[in-house]
Amino acid sequence: MTGWLTQPHFVTLEGGEGAGKSTVLAALRDALQADGCDVVSTREPGGTPLAERIRSLLLDAGDEAVAPHAELLLMFAARAQHVQEIILPALQRGAWVICDRFTDSSYAYQGAARGMDVHFIAELERHAVGIEPGLTLLLDLDVAHARQRTRGRDLLGGASPDRIERERDEFFERVRAGFLTRAAQHPQRVHVLDASPEAAAVAAAARMRLADYRKALA
Amino acid sequence: MTGWLTQPHFVTLEGGEGAGKSTVLAALRDALQADGCDVVSTREPGGTPLAERIRSLLLDAGDEAVAPHAELLLMFAARAQHVQEIILPALQRGAWVICDRFTDSSYAYQGAARGMDVHFIAELERHAVGIEPGLTLLLDLDVAHARQRTRGRDLLGGASPDRIERERDEFFERVRAGFLTRAAQHPQRVHVLDASPEAAAVAAAARMRLADYRKALA
Ligand SMILES: Nc1ncnc2c1ncn2[C@@H]1O[C@H](COP(=O)(O)OP(=O)(O)OP(=O)(O)O)[C@@H](O)[C@H]1O
Ligand SMILES: Nc1ncnc2c1ncn2[C@@H]1O[C@H](COP(=O)(O)OP(=O)(O)OP(=O)(O)O)[C@@H](O)[C@H]1O
Ligand SMILES: [Mg+2]
Ligand SMILES: [Mg+2]
Repeated sequence: MTGWLTQPHFVTLEGGEGAGKSTVLAALRDALQADGCDVVSTREPGGTPLAERIRSLLLDAGDEAVAPHAELLLMFAARAQHVQEIILPALQRGAWVICDRFTDSSYAYQGAARGMDVHFIAELERHAVGIEPGLTLLLDLDVAHARQRTRGRDLLGGASPDRIERERDEFFERVRAGFLTRAAQHPQRVHVLDASPEAAAVAAAARMRLADYRKALA
Repeated sequence: MTGWLTQPHFVTLEGGEGAGKSTVLAALRDALQADGCDVVSTREPGGTPLAERIRSLLLDAGDEAVAPHAELLLMFAARAQHVQEIILPALQRGAWVICDRFTDSSYAYQGAARGMDVHFIAELERHAVGIEPGLTLLLDLDVAHARQRTRGRDLLGGASPDRIERERDEFFERVRAGFLTRAAQHPQRVHVLDASPEAAAVAAAARMRLADYRKALA
């Protein structure tokens, strides 16, 4: 990668399982499209055929215990492919890109929750990612409440919990704290939204944040 | 990983496609076993179910252009898993481990041939691998000669060339130079063997190197 670059039209949604990222992403995409913007919405890990294949290795390794460094490097391999093949080309043609999870998730899950060296994560980010979003919305929700939401979804016939969803509450408490630490370290870029109100209210708050951000850009 | 460690009972074979690594590996394994040693022989990328799945992503990505950083990180993800699950446990119980390719291949292929930052490769090695072999045999062969050997093997009904085997001669010239640079930088550990003689002669030379190494260890 040639150099570190904040990408103004790149927006990411972060937060734990069930916080409402996918729900808010759809609301922001619709708002931008209603305003005539070219929008690419995507997700991590995944977003390209190779990256989706990496995602399935990550989420279902059968009975094999995944080495923490293997997990970390697979995440960044998928992200490198996603940035190169989807995100950068879209930004370069002037589109908005909204992504469900990005590098902050690696700091929260592999860094804060699994205890891996954050300096190494920063090296991976610098070399293999090379870009950061202009705006990140962190959907913050307590762990018990998030469990209720994913349970609701699972009862509605969703897929069975994957390798990471099977972790215990302590793990998700560390994830949550890890995200809040990222927000504190990047107060300009990361905005914390209370994700506990009903979906329409959270979506409205997210749309307002994005509108403020666009005004500040203009 | 807790700290950098040279592993005396860890032996790796390096060299380009068709140099004769797999042939020599079998000879060394047989020699150690004939001598009553517990030996684990393995290969990279691969060596565990997850790492073999990563290998197949690397060698067959369909029509998708693999981002250089994705390739590099997939290699190291597979290696981290392999070290943790297979190599370290075998060494810890006192076995010899002989591995067909290891970290030197990443310096040669991703570093020298694809031009990726060697300092970053060294960071990946330090964090995600954490061990190095006590002895590495580099099978050195000129590119045209190696092509003849793989062509012979392919005519005998081998698999069709994979994504990396389809690279051009220039690429393999850089790989060869990259391996020789590694040998020059690690003269104690890496021994260059002329791989051009007939198989029995190369195997005999490799066995002699291993015997000398074992004498020096004792
Ligand atoms: N504000 C909300 N109030 C109540 N339920 C919500 C709210 N937002 C989303 N949900 C519901 O909670 C569940 C989880 O939401 P969603 O899938 O958007 O979360 P997510 O953060 O994308 O989760 P994951 O990380 O698992 O993809 C869904 O069933 C969704 O309909
Ligand atoms: N010294 C030799 N002389 C002639 N042929 C050889 C020699 N060593 C190996 N071969 C033959 O050359 C081919 C390549 O050898 P081998 O598979 O051992 O190489 P390799 O380095 O493991 O290759 P790859 O990187 O593709 O796995 C095989 O058909 C093998 O039988
Ligand atoms: Mg979601
Ligand atoms: Mg071989």
